[in-house]
Amino acid sequence: MIVVMKKGATPQQIQHMIERVEALGLKSHPIYGTERTVIAAIGEKRDEHRQSLESGPGVAEVVPILAPYKVASREVKPEPTVVRAGSLTVGNCNLGMIAGPCSVENQEQTISTARAVKAAGATALRGGAFKPRTSPYSFQGLKEEGLKILADAREETGLAVVTEVMAATDVALVGRYADVLQVGARNMQNYRLLEEVGKEGKAVLLKRGPSATMDELLLAAEYVLNAGNPNVMLCERDIRTFESHVRFSLTLSSVPYLHERTHLPVVVDPSHGTGHTNLVTRMAAAAVAAGADGLMIEVHPDPETALSDGYQSLNFKQFEELMQLCRKVADAVGKKIA
Amino acid sequence: MIVVMKKGATPQQIQHMIERVEALGLKSHPIYGTERTVIAAIGEKRDEHRQSLESGPGVAEVVPILAPYKVASREVKPEPTVVRAGSLTVGNCNLGMIAGPCSVENQEQTISTARAVKAAGATALRGGAFKPRTSPYSFQGLKEEGLKILADAREETGLAVVTEVMAATDVALVGRYADVLQVGARNMQNYRLLEEVGKEGKAVLLKRGPSATMDELLLAAEYVLNAGNPNVMLCERDIRTFESHVRFSLTLSSVPYLHERTHLPVVVDPSHGTGHTNLVTRMAAAAVAAGADGLMIEVHPDPETALSDGYQSLNFKQFEELMQLCRKVADAVGKKIA
Amino acid sequence: MIVVMKKGATPQQIQHMIERVEALGLKSHPIYGTERTVIAAIGEKRDEHRQSLESGPGVAEVVPILAPYKVASREVKPEPTVVRAGSLTVGNCNLGMIAGPCSVENQEQTISTARAVKAAGATALRGGAFKPRTSPYSFQGLKEEGLKILADAREETGLAVVTEVMAATDVALVGRYADVLQVGARNMQNYRLLEEVGKEGKAVLLKRGPSATMDELLLAAEYVLNAGNPNVMLCERDIRTFESHVRFSLTLSSVPYLHERTHLPVVVDPSHGTGHTNLVTRMAAAAVAAGADGLMIEVHPDPETALSDGYQSLNFKQFEELMQLCRKVADAVGKKIA
Amino acid sequence: MIVVMKKGATPQQIQHMIERVEALGLKSHPIYGTERTVIAAIGEKRDEHRQSLESGPGVAEVVPILAPYKVASREVKPEPTVVRAGSLTVGNCNLGMIAGPCSVENQEQTISTARAVKAAGATALRGGAFKPRTSPYSFQGLKEEGLKILADAREETGLAVVTEVMAATDVALVGRYADVLQVGARNMQNYRLLEEVGKEGKAVLLKRGPSATMDELLLAAEYVLNAGNPNVMLCERDIRTFESHVRFSLTLSSVPYLHERTHLPVVVDPSHGTGHTNLVTRMAAAAVAAGADGLMIEVHPDPETALSDGYQSLNFKQFEELMQLCRKVADAVGKKIA
Repeated sequence: MIVVMKKGATPQQIQHMIERVEALGLKSHPIYGTERTVIAAIGEKRDEHRQSLESGPGVAEVVPILAPYKVASREVKPEPTVVRAGSLTVGNCNLGMIAGPCSVENQEQTISTARAVKAAGATALRGGAFKPRTSPYSFQGLKEEGLKILADAREETGLAVVTEVMAATDVALVGRYADVLQVGARNMQNYRLLEEVGKEGKAVLLKRGPSATMDELLLAAEYVLNAGNPNVMLCERDIRTFESHVRFSLTLSSVPYLHERTHLPVVVDPSHGTGHTNLVTRMAAAAVAAGADGLMIEVHPDPETALSDGYQSLNFKQFEELMQLCRKVADAVGKKIA
Repeated sequence: MIVVMKKGATPQQIQHMIERVEALGLKSHPIYGTERTVIAAIGEKRDEHRQSLESGPGVAEVVPILAPYKVASREVKPEPTVVRAGSLTVGNCNLGMIAGPCSVENQEQTISTARAVKAAGATALRGGAFKPRTSPYSFQGLKEEGLKILADAREETGLAVVTEVMAATDVALVGRYADVLQVGARNMQNYRLLEEVGKEGKAVLLKRGPSATMDELLLAAEYVLNAGNPNVMLCERDIRTFESHVRFSLTLSSVPYLHERTHLPVVVDPSHGTGHTNLVTRMAAAAVAAGADGLMIEVHPDPETALSDGYQSLNFKQFEELMQLCRKVADAVGKKIA
Repeated sequence: MIVVMKKGATPQQIQHMIERVEALGLKSHPIYGTERTVIAAIGEKRDEHRQSLESGPGVAEVVPILAPYKVASREVKPEPTVVRAGSLTVGNCNLGMIAGPCSVENQEQTISTARAVKAAGATALRGGAFKPRTSPYSFQGLKEEGLKILADAREETGLAVVTEVMAATDVALVGRYADVLQVGARNMQNYRLLEEVGKEGKAVLLKRGPSATMDELLLAAEYVLNAGNPNVMLCERDIRTFESHVRFSLTLSSVPYLHERTHLPVVVDPSHGTGHTNLVTRMAAAAVAAGADGLMIEVHPDPETALSDGYQSLNFKQFEELMQLCRKVADAVGKKIA
Repeated sequence: MIVVMKKGATPQQIQHMIERVEALGLKSHPIYGTERTVIAAIGEKRDEHRQSLESGPGVAEVVPILAPYKVASREVKPEPTVVRAGSLTVGNCNLGMIAGPCSVENQEQTISTARAVKAAGATALRGGAFKPRTSPYSFQGLKEEGLKILADAREETGLAVVTEVMAATDVALVGRYADVLQVGARNMQNYRLLEEVGKEGKAVLLKRGPSATMDELLLAAEYVLNAGNPNVMLCERDIRTFESHVRFSLTLSSVPYLHERTHLPVVVDPSHGTGHTNLVTRMAAAAVAAGADGLMIEVHPDPETALSDGYQSLNFKQFEELMQLCRKVADAVGKKIA
């Protein structure tokens, strides 16, 4: 890291900071510029508490140089990770297509949707049994009953099941039914949950929180990787911005950015990423062109009556059209829907 | 709610939506404007899945009219809630002053800080034993050992203890030592945790997540209130914005806004809310002037060597100065530090 | 619009607001709900000062129903506008490719770039002669000398010239050399400039400001359209968000959103929209897949020595690769590079 | 600045960048770390095009060390600037109180407001004659007629006149009537206008644009200062964020931040900064506590009928209450309303 001293910092202050840097086990390297002195600290370990140096006398700021994540880093593992879970393959040139209802509402709704998305070309089924809802008065999901319905749908269609787990204590239960454990955006920094899905071993789909930076997302992944589970898919969902014509803003430049920094595959969720049915298909195509390794799409037999997220769900016909468009764009950019 | 039809919506589409509204148990009231038709839905229950109507044919948008929270609402309980927990009183004209280290590092550091903040006028001690850290490589807290140190500090100084609980399964343990259970910003929508602190009964300090809207914050509080615990303090921490001269942006207009909408008291955390020591004191004073019912301040014997958050911690002398300034501003706006 | 009264608004307050609405020449239509009364105001003109009703006694909020723009609206003109300016065609199925240096630095740099982008398939040349720079100490552009160089480059290559005009008083001068007058993001709400380019008659490329909403962008276009100039291209550049891995966040869902609301074509600028060379090509492809009608790309013979924006410029080879990728994606989504 | 090389950058790439740095007239100072090499560039001039080095081979990023502004910097002029314009004094311990209508609508409305705000203790009158309006269909101001009414109000009350100038070509006209030339948020980066008000000599109130960083605001001020006008007041208005309970977010930590970085005084506008009448008074008090050197408040005889901004205007009684509260807070923090 670089410790930037204030203009006018005294020699005593500079000497003090040199000693502080060395007390941390680092080699200090002061550079006396025309206006300011900076102290480079070499041998840096990635350990954020060192930023407390910023409180030192005469210090203007501390600039970190190294990325704070390790195992997720492309520098450590240059070749892309491919995650496989049942019928789903995500990463490298494989484009996974995960589709299904926001919530599992009943057997009929889920199975009919599974059949429809399979027919259209989806490679995995999504569906929520444990639903984190902003309001305590909203539908909270069918819980284990929902998981059983998802397992039935897999039986019926062969599609791998992707479903959310909301709490560390539910990981074993959800793991009995699911092929992929989804960690939702609200739980991206629920570290107990991350550690637990890290131990479980099933593939993990980790959604970006709406105010998370890239470093925070990768450090959240690092919690899972560190617990021994290498099968992590990152999921760009969206960020919260001032824009009001969308529920959230989908900033796809995270896709090529992440591909440079990490070997982990990147899935995009244009349903939550826009929040409006009529924007989903185009943003799905854009995500594929940006290099996404997978898509996650909400589909419902009758969005108008959905118990959750109807405003951003596609009906079966709309999903078919999405698949047609995405297939062409995938060809154009050298990806194949497995 | 108001269902706004698109320009050119057909009579069939309008009729369809009227029927949909009535199927939800609401009374429909169509208004035929010069350019558009809107359908008012009367008898509205607060139930967000109704927004799925937005998927209906010819619908442009659905505008909710009622606030989605109930028990937290000022309409339901007009008089302000005063939360008391040991030495701490927050709400109405009582300004609570919670101060202490980010992390409990050891007995000496914590007790000396407790004494110093008590001497300066603080009314409660903060300190983290379970630390949610962005990086798995950062100091994660002393856990139960830290809780014991906090209890010792209370014994020594009489200050109520405010400390974070990170997981539903820790609530009972933390509840044995703490006077106030803090739910951190990362966990604002960890619904299991909210339900659990709701059942425990100890006072709760609920921090706003960095991308949470006011409605989302109040609905999170609603989870706690609904579980039977009325002693909830909201805590405005900050939001994430494009501003880079601060770690987060502290938007104090939430204080008067919340005072209109809810009876719950509002605490402000200018340490996280700015992320820089040199901005904390002024923003603390501003928070008091904005009407805050409490402040939460990070104080450390030697911020430069702190294991976490040193860059935003005050030393003892700086905290004394903060207290002097805040006392004067509190007088000016008719609050008293209890 | 809908005037929403507070819970507990008195009959007198409701009557007062009914009278206020009617005094504005609107028909009032009160609806008495179970919790609140709302007053629908029919015959609404688009006139924002009516929101001042929000100050009325007992009023909770005023919800506008109609979009505030007219001439730009798709409701008024359902078929897409195609803008033509020399070699450039933008709109409907025509994908315009505008490329060139950030700043015109000299004859050699500009002409060589014009030749290279033309060879790679660009359909227009961009280049800045008047440069709005954040710092007064940065290179401010060659001004009229730069315009002459651009005209020479058009002579040489046949490419239409797109260049920025910074002030109302420069419109005539820039109009003598340019085929398309660009209004920069900083000037999106410089209304004098908008009126002046509206009168000039040359095609206009209007960039979205980094904190502008869709309505604000369309209202800025409305200033130009109202002045009599129908040849307006909107340009999605980016928005300012908390993300720090990009200079700005490029939120492409504005492309399909705008295509629903307006007949004006939408160009995307992935150079400013990301701020990093290595993200430009993928985001260009994503923009095409999202349905963009044109792209605007910064290209420089040697980005490392560019007088401005080198960090986001492509060199000639990188631009060729971008064109190859975009051509394939354009085919996939049914657009042709004219 | 610091040029950070990628991990694995070759010796040739490092040598190349050393030569590039020296070609810019800087002294290079490479530091070979355990993971990465960085090159410190000493003798740095503030010239942003140097960031184009980021395009160099093997470069990860370029980190600037020096602030980009000079004349506005506190390092250059440590003592605070006090701006005086007629009855208005702003800066150091002087708190200026600027109040009046958003728009000058007519003689009666403006004069009665001027009298009322003067009686309540305001030290200057605000009022818009040239109104930049988001929509071309909104009231655009009375222009010169409005300026005359403002001059009459000054005649009547002795209050200095603060009014907006929208275009470089209007500076002379507005300067004939006004005591302070306001540059609006939309025009913060209208460099022609900045240069022109810099030449005119009247005091300038420069509002922060809703997505401007602190550096951008200070560089905009630098345009005015550089043109020879030292009488610049910065005005924190607000920023655009995801928050929807306010029109904009008022992040007051810019006040103490700016006081550290610049000698220029900082005025706060809580009317635009919140966008709701009921939040203005508390945020005005908070701004004073944060250390603001002045406030700017919208006041109207009958906000409900205002031609602009009624939703955020105070009536006379509300303004009196605001003054009472602010006077007490000003006393508490050692400021006096001159």
